[in-house]
Amino acid sequence: MISKAKLKYLSSLKQRKSRQEHNRFLVEGLRLCEEILDSYYEIETALFCAAQLQSERGQQLIETLRQRGIPTLEINQTELKRISETVHSQGIVCVVKKREFDLSEILRTPPRVLLAFDEINDPGNLGAILRTAGWFNVGGIFLSKNSVEAVNGKVVRASMGGLFHLPIFENCTLEEMIAKLKNENYAIWVADANGDVDYRRANFGEKNLLVLGNEIEGVHSEIMKMADGLLKIPNPGKGESLNVAVAAGILLAEMNRGNK
Amino acid sequence: MISKAKLKYLSSLKQRKSRQEHNRFLVEGLRLCEEILDSYYEIETALFCAAQLQSERGQQLIETLRQRGIPTLEINQTELKRISETVHSQGIVCVVKKREFDLSEILRTPPRVLLAFDEINDPGNLGAILRTAGWFNVGGIFLSKNSVEAVNGKVVRASMGGLFHLPIFENCTLEEMIAKLKNENYAIWVADANGDVDYRRANFGEKNLLVLGNEIEGVHSEIMKMADGLLKIPNPGKGESLNVAVAAGILLAEMNRGNK
Repeated sequence: MISKAKLKYLSSLKQRKSRQEHNRFLVEGLRLCEEILDSYYEIETALFCAAQLQSERGQQLIETLRQRGIPTLEINQTELKRISETVHSQGIVCVVKKREFDLSEILRTPPRVLLAFDEINDPGNLGAILRTAGWFNVGGIFLSKNSVEAVNGKVVRASMGGLFHLPIFENCTLEEMIAKLKNENYAIWVADANGDVDYRRANFGEKNLLVLGNEIEGVHSEIMKMADGLLKIPNPGKGESLNVAVAAGILLAEMNRGNK
Repeated sequence: MISKAKLKYLSSLKQRKSRQEHNRFLVEGLRLCEEILDSYYEIETALFCAAQLQSERGQQLIETLRQRGIPTLEINQTELKRISETVHSQGIVCVVKKREFDLSEILRTPPRVLLAFDEINDPGNLGAILRTAGWFNVGGIFLSKNSVEAVNGKVVRASMGGLFHLPIFENCTLEEMIAKLKNENYAIWVADANGDVDYRRANFGEKNLLVLGNEIEGVHSEIMKMADGLLKIPNPGKGESLNVAVAAGILLAEMNRGNK
């Protein structure tokens, strides 16, 4: 049993406003809670409902959490229902501290692809792209103001935990960020259905920033102007555009093509 | 005004069972209704709500439908609400006839990539893949039994109409289909996170079938055994797998790499 006030607070973390106020977010389910244990993030408390967490894997997770000194708190099914965002809860929800990353550290590490989002809206798309970014070992993520929040529950679930391993910078002024990266000799590539550089013929150097735009509006013109190239995926068939997560996957795979 | 019985019938087309019984499906919104006008499909009736279809583009669409001899039927907002699946309806819904495609015709056309799905479940994923398949000019789509229906409203919307330009075969027994394609000298490629062929080094000939599996289970082992190669996208970073729509995009882009 937990207090009414505590339950209200935990349930409020499903809202962006409360996550930003308290600097905490919720991570739910066995796989995601396992994943965040071995990531950049610190789990503050693990809430579990014994009745819904009876698998061996669930028992093992609680055991590991305790061994690591993370407070665990048993809750009942009614309480779980208030806190959970999923229809079929697996009986475990972690409260995780948001964290800040250090840009200079990102820039010191060996050159990798970085990824920026200009007002991306759809949590499913952002999550799928972060899953891809984790896969292709992207070095850092920049989200502009007015983008969906990276620790939004839907983003976290669609990313399959991929975002836990990515340094993420939120509320960025992309123009400033891009200017900094240009100073560090990053090439700036904007994904654009009407771009002038066929992605298969782009000359990717060692340091690249890929900028992805809003699903409808694309990338703002001020940012387009800062680009070294506008990447297009040529269309031999039908359609006005690709899904942004699919386009991001094709471009990230290409930028990673020379690597093992 | 339309009769209660007609309204009930139209609203029922939101359900798979009714779509299969009546061999009809619904297509909603300006862009999708425009798209289906220039596709393989025949629109039976266009339902529109004048109060919600006031844009010039909307007027133009109604005009074009009438010029083509397609019956248009005005409905009110209450009726639209019963029929529409979207929160912000654009005031137009078309009733479209399902259709059958001829496999021998597909096999006679110049060799292209074909795409098969082994029990894909998520309509958003299937829709995004069909959007990609339209873009890359895929020659035909095979959906196994127990896959989500291609003309499910969510699939149609996520495909952005891409599926209207694709010959689609539903309820396929994939083993039989694959045997036929092998006879026609198609190479059979299965996407598999644990595959043995790096997709960047696969030797794609002229005729290829790409098989994609269920989001959780992957492709059935009987089908794996029929493959000429199991394609993997190597993972230099983190994660157990890519989103299936992202993986499909990367593989279809690669299979299309040599083309203009």
